[in-house]
Order: sequence, then C-alpha cells, then structure tokens
Amino acid sequence: MIDERAFSGKTIEILREIRARRPLVHHITNFVVMNSTANVTLAVGASPIMAHAHEEMEAISAFANALNLNIGTLTPYWVDSMCMAGKSAGKRGIPIILDPVGSGATPFRTEATSRILKEVPVTVIRGNASEVMSLFTSADGIRIRGVDSLETVETVREGAHHLAKTLKKVIAVTGAVDYITDGERAVEVFNGHPMFGQVTGTGCAATTVISCFCAVEPDPLVAAACALGYYGLAGEEAARVSIGPGSFQTALYDALHTMTEDALAERLRIRQIE
Amino acid sequence: MIDERAFSGKTIEILREIRARRPLVHHITNFVVMNSTANVTLAVGASPIMAHAHEEMEAISAFANALNLNIGTLTPYWVDSMCMAGKSAGKRGIPIILDPVGSGATPFRTEATSRILKEVPVTVIRGNASEVMSLFTSADGIRIRGVDSLETVETVREGAHHLAKTLKKVIAVTGAVDYITDGERAVEVFNGHPMFGQVTGTGCAATTVISCFCAVEPDPLVAAACALGYYGLAGEEAARVSIGPGSFQTALYDALHTMTEDALAERLRIRQIE
Amino acid sequence: MIDERAFSGKTIEILREIRARRPLVHHITNFVVMNSTANVTLAVGASPIMAHAHEEMEAISAFANALNLNIGTLTPYWVDSMCMAGKSAGKRGIPIILDPVGSGATPFRTEATSRILKEVPVTVIRGNASEVMSLFTSADGIRIRGVDSLETVETVREGAHHLAKTLKKVIAVTGAVDYITDGERAVEVFNGHPMFGQVTGTGCAATTVISCFCAVEPDPLVAAACALGYYGLAGEEAARVSIGPGSFQTALYDALHTMTEDALAERLRIRQIE
Repeated sequence: MIDERAFSGKTIEILREIRARRPLVHHITNFVVMNSTANVTLAVGASPIMAHAHEEMEAISAFANALNLNIGTLTPYWVDSMCMAGKSAGKRGIPIILDPVGSGATPFRTEATSRILKEVPVTVIRGNASEVMSLFTSADGIRIRGVDSLETVETVREGAHHLAKTLKKVIAVTGAVDYITDGERAVEVFNGHPMFGQVTGTGCAATTVISCFCAVEPDPLVAAACALGYYGLAGEEAARVSIGPGSFQTALYDALHTMTEDALAERLRIRQIE
Repeated sequence: MIDERAFSGKTIEILREIRARRPLVHHITNFVVMNSTANVTLAVGASPIMAHAHEEMEAISAFANALNLNIGTLTPYWVDSMCMAGKSAGKRGIPIILDPVGSGATPFRTEATSRILKEVPVTVIRGNASEVMSLFTSADGIRIRGVDSLETVETVREGAHHLAKTLKKVIAVTGAVDYITDGERAVEVFNGHPMFGQVTGTGCAATTVISCFCAVEPDPLVAAACALGYYGLAGEEAARVSIGPGSFQTALYDALHTMTEDALAERLRIRQIE
Repeated sequence: MIDERAFSGKTIEILREIRARRPLVHHITNFVVMNSTANVTLAVGASPIMAHAHEEMEAISAFANALNLNIGTLTPYWVDSMCMAGKSAGKRGIPIILDPVGSGATPFRTEATSRILKEVPVTVIRGNASEVMSLFTSADGIRIRGVDSLETVETVREGAHHLAKTLKKVIAVTGAVDYITDGERAVEVFNGHPMFGQVTGTGCAATTVISCFCAVEPDPLVAAACALGYYGLAGEEAARVSIGPGSFQTALYDALHTMTEDALAERLRIRQIE
C-alpha cells in the first residue's frame, strides 16, 4: 500500500520528470477542448500535438510519448483516426489514454468506445460515472447526467473494479471523489472543487493531465492518481482566487503552471484503499 | 403590453427555471465558438452538448431541450447535420434557434440559411442587421459590415417585422439596440456594450443564451428579449471591471454566472414597443 | 536602411491604418487556434473571417484584404481549401501569409507546405526554425523541437535568406530573436517574452498579426517586422501583469488592444541588419 505522503512524493517526482523531458502528447480530441487541453498540456510542462489526418497518424506515433483519445464531437473519420493512431502507438508501447465523452448518451458514441477498446490497447480510461457505466451495462436508461440518482456510487465502483480486472486496464471514475482502479488496487482522490463543473472541458483536461503523467510514469494507476490529485489541487487554488467560471479557468492554467512542491507535499489528498 | 418591470420579473423567473432544470442545449455550431458558447451555456446554468455526426443527430434530439444551429465555418456535411437535427427536433417540439452567421456574405451561406429555413421549423432567428437582411433581400451589394450605411435601421426593422409575420417566427436583430419581433409584437433591448464587438463569438453566444432561455420559456419572443437583456447587462458588468477584450471575455463568463436578481430587477432595459 | 526610430513610426502608422480601415483577414487555420487568432485579429483592430468550405473560397477572396493559411490540424480537404483560396487571392493581388505549423514533423505536413508553395503565390512565410528548415532541407532528422541543438541559428538564417531570395518571398523565423528577410534585406526583432512558449497558438497568432499588417502595408518585410515587434511588445506588457499562462493570454489580448503609441515609440526594438 502506498501511503498518502508517498503519493505526494511521487507526484512531485513525476512533475519534475515532465518538466525535464517535456514529453510530446498526441491528442485526437474534440473541437470544444482542443485549445484548452493544449494549454493544459503546456501548463503541466509537456508539449501538445493535435493531429487527426489519417496520412500522419503513424508518423506521429514515431515521436509521441503518449496518445490521448477523446470521442467528443466525433465522426466516423475521427474514430478511424483514433484506431490508426492507437494501433501504431500500441506497437511502440506508448501509453494510450481514452476519454469516452458522452459514451452511453447515444449508440454512436457507445459503439465508438467499444470499437476503440476492441482495436486499441488502451492503458487508462477516464470518465464520469455514466460514461464508465456505459462500458459495462447496456445503454438503456442511462443518460449523460443523473446517473447518481440511478445507481449508487458503490455500484459504479464495483463495476469499474471488475471491468478493470477483466480488461487489464486502469479505469478512473471522476466525480466529487475520484476512484481509480486497475482491478487489483484502488485509490481515492479527494482533491477537486465544484467549479470544475462550471467550465467546459475540465473533464477532458483531467484526461490530458493523466496523459502527461503516463508519458513519464510507467505505473498507470499511480500516474492517474497523482495526475488527478495535482489537477484537483490546482482547481482548489484557482477557486480560491476567482469569482466565477471565467476567472476560474484563467486561474486554473496559472495554478497548474505555478504549483509549488510545498503545496503538493501538504495538500494532496490521495489515498490507496485496496 | 408587458411593462419593463414585468420583463425583469420574467427574466429572473426564467433564470431560476434554467438553474433548477439545467436544460440540455444541443449545439451544431462553428469551430471558432464551440468552446466559448459551451462555457456561456454553463455560465447561464444550462448544459451544452456539441455534436454534429449524422449518426447521432436523431438520438440527441430524444433528450435535448433546445437546438442551437449556427452556420459559421459550415461545409455541406454540417448543413446536412443541421437539417437532420432540426427535423428531428421539430418532430419533438423542441425549440430551434438559428444564427445565420455571415449569411449574405457568400452565396453558399445565404443558400444554407434558405435551405435550413425551408427544411427545419426554426423558432427564433438571431442575427445582425446584414445577416437578417440577407433573409429578405437579394444578397447584391450587401456585405458583412457596413450595412448601417446602406440601409437605415428602420428599413431593417420593417423587413424583419414583415418577415417574422410571414414566416411565423421570432426574429431578433442585434446591434446597438436590439430589436425582437414575432410579426405582431416588437421589443427593444437597450442593455449591451461596445466591447462585445471586440471579442469573437459574442453574437453566437447571444444566440446561445436565447437557446437556453427558449429551453424553459414557451413564449419565444419573451425568451429572446429577456435573454438579450440579461446577456447585455452581463456585458455592461464585465466592461466595468475589465481593461480590454481579454479581461472582458473572462469577466463576461463571471458576470453571467454571478448575476444577481437585484441587478436584473434594477438594471434591465427591455421595452415592448408594439 | 530603416533605422529603429523609423520602424516605430511605421508600426504606429500601420496600426492607425488598420484601425481606420478594419481590413478583413480570411483565415484558413487549425482548430486549436480558431478562437484565439480571431480574437487577436480583433484586438489588433482588423476583422476576422474563418471559412474553409470549397463552395465559398472564391467568393470570400472578393472582399478579403489578406489571406492567412495555417496547416495545423490539416487534412487533404483543408489543403485543397487553402490552394483554392490562395489561387483566388493571388489573382486579386491580396497578400497571402503562410504558417507551416509542424512542417518537417511529418511527411504529410512537409508535402502540404510544398504543395501550397507551388500552387499559391505566398507573400510571407512565418515559422519557427525547424519549420523553416523543413522548407530547404530534407526532413530527415528534423523534429518539431530541438532544432537549436542540431543547427546553429546562423545556418537557419543563411538558409532562410537564400530561400527568400530564390522564392522571392519574405521569410520570418521567430524565436528568442526574430529574423525576417526578403533575400535582400534582413531585420531582427528583439521584442518578445518566454511566456509566449507556455500558451498554445501564440506562434499562429504572430502569423495573424503579420496578416493584419500586410493587409494595409504594401512592403511585406516592413509589415512582418513591425507586426512581430508590436506583438512581442504586447507579450512583454502582458508578462509584466500576469502570474502564469492563463492570465498571460488574457493580458495579451488586452495589451494588443490597449497598446499606446508612446509605448511603441519607446520600447520597440526592431533593427535592420542588411
């Protein structure tokens, strides 16, 4: 079991590594968050490359250090891009992080997620409760929001744990408290702030931070947990100095960039529970 | 006739409804404003979903509460998406709000607007004077800007009034003073600020606020007028605390989110003139 | 030789012209920066139009005052758009500014740049050292970053000078010190700040500012040098009042918009060296 202090130390170490190596994170992501996730990648200390043309998917995997796949605003062309890049990244052993935005909301998105998981050796999946549930239940009766009233947190966690074990992947379910599991171990992250829900793309950006961390940290469970702790803490700092969603987003980039090791040592709340 | 005080009360009531119900506003919109209109939707208190794949247009209309169509950066694929989503939304009685960005500037945009209006039961059209004029005049001699020198405000208003009556739609012409008509009634909104013209996508965001208001208010003339008053007032607040277009945009999201009922009661300037 | 004071005077004059005429700058650009470059266009005082549909490329060239081509997030469709718009702009004598984002990183991007340069009468090319080098060396061994360790600044400048002469174009190589040449003359711009590297799309926005300047200034070398000086100085002002990349970007738009003629007269550092 990793104790809370060890998670802080690990987070500090990973951030140092990122800033020393500046890994390149290839994003195939949605139109809404292309700018904001590129900025988050830079604020963390990594380098973004946004590209989706079939003609360059293989070429980019030759120098990318992580692949971030996000199915928001998808069309069939983009799903093909993700599968091409994913296969190529898989051959090179590059970590692949999937954000199944809106999976469960429409059959098209649920099927895109299924296809990607079938064709691509995804390392980490990051979604909210309803998106993660779409991976292990039929989509009937599940909607983008309101999942908390349909299913208890416990049910989602049990399903995620079981699915992570079956698929041999890390699954991160983000919410008021984040839950990350690889089917053996499980971690809770308490950092975060309700203001994240008032700004578009903050979930996608959480996935981006995980991608940056996975680019330098070989244990994806640890990478995901430390990433979500650091990101959540940056949100806490941003909320403290902002007055609404506009200033919160600006302050979030600032906080990710200026985060001190002291703050990480003292204020991260990451706890291994299994 | 609704008096000024009644518009304020109505605006407060609509915002309460939005924040209680959190309606889902489906946007098919341009690449420039996908992020900013999603953030405006959240700042108002509603939920955005951005999606354009033909495969999911019908599925989304099953749970969306309003449909926002915007023809900026359009291609034929996207016009098809808008028609598919619009027909589906029409069958379910969901309000449809159209922003004919750049209509009149190129034949492609003018024709896209015509086609959408022919195939889709649009509820509200929101544009600037030259975009609205492209709906009722030939495009000859009309350019994106400079319409004020070609045609008087009065001509545009008369045309909009006549067209609204013919089409049985609400038309909102935004400018220094906004003019909203359904062909019977007409309303002026005096809230607003010149800084809106210095930030991209603020017209598109006005349409988004109208879409959020239409999602809960069945009278589209009232919804559009109250939306533009609230949005304009948020701009006034933002201008008061900002020093340029960057800080204005940040402050605009904050002001939309933190707007008090007192401010709405005292500072909205919405007047029914017919 | 233009002396430093003359560059300041010229920059002031160009900005006055832009704000008097509000030229329309047609952008065919990448998804990451559509919003930010539209906002930079407005902050400079010009008007942006973002459009890529083949159906309207020719129509837009009839009223655009400059064409900004940017190959980030490109696909074959978009390269076709750029060639169509570029040919049409060329016939009308509209200045064309190319940002070869990521050229040299993948064969697809390098070939897109080659094709555009073959088919379109580009006026100015703006890139970083590795992007510019991809124009005159084979792509072997060149990566997006790290070019400084592979090649000396001097080699890049010599290559750019030679290529500018051969192609009869202006080439602007941006970096710690910007270098602009038309193959006869050469200019250095010292304004700038390291924070530009922490925000996505700031290179693309530099190209946008050049496009705005070229829309009113017939000498593209002077336009590019003055644009980069003004933009770099705005970055210096923004860095002075910000605490991280989020507040820097906000302050950058503000600084571009509120820049005084006094600041331009006193703090621009543009030097003709040949």
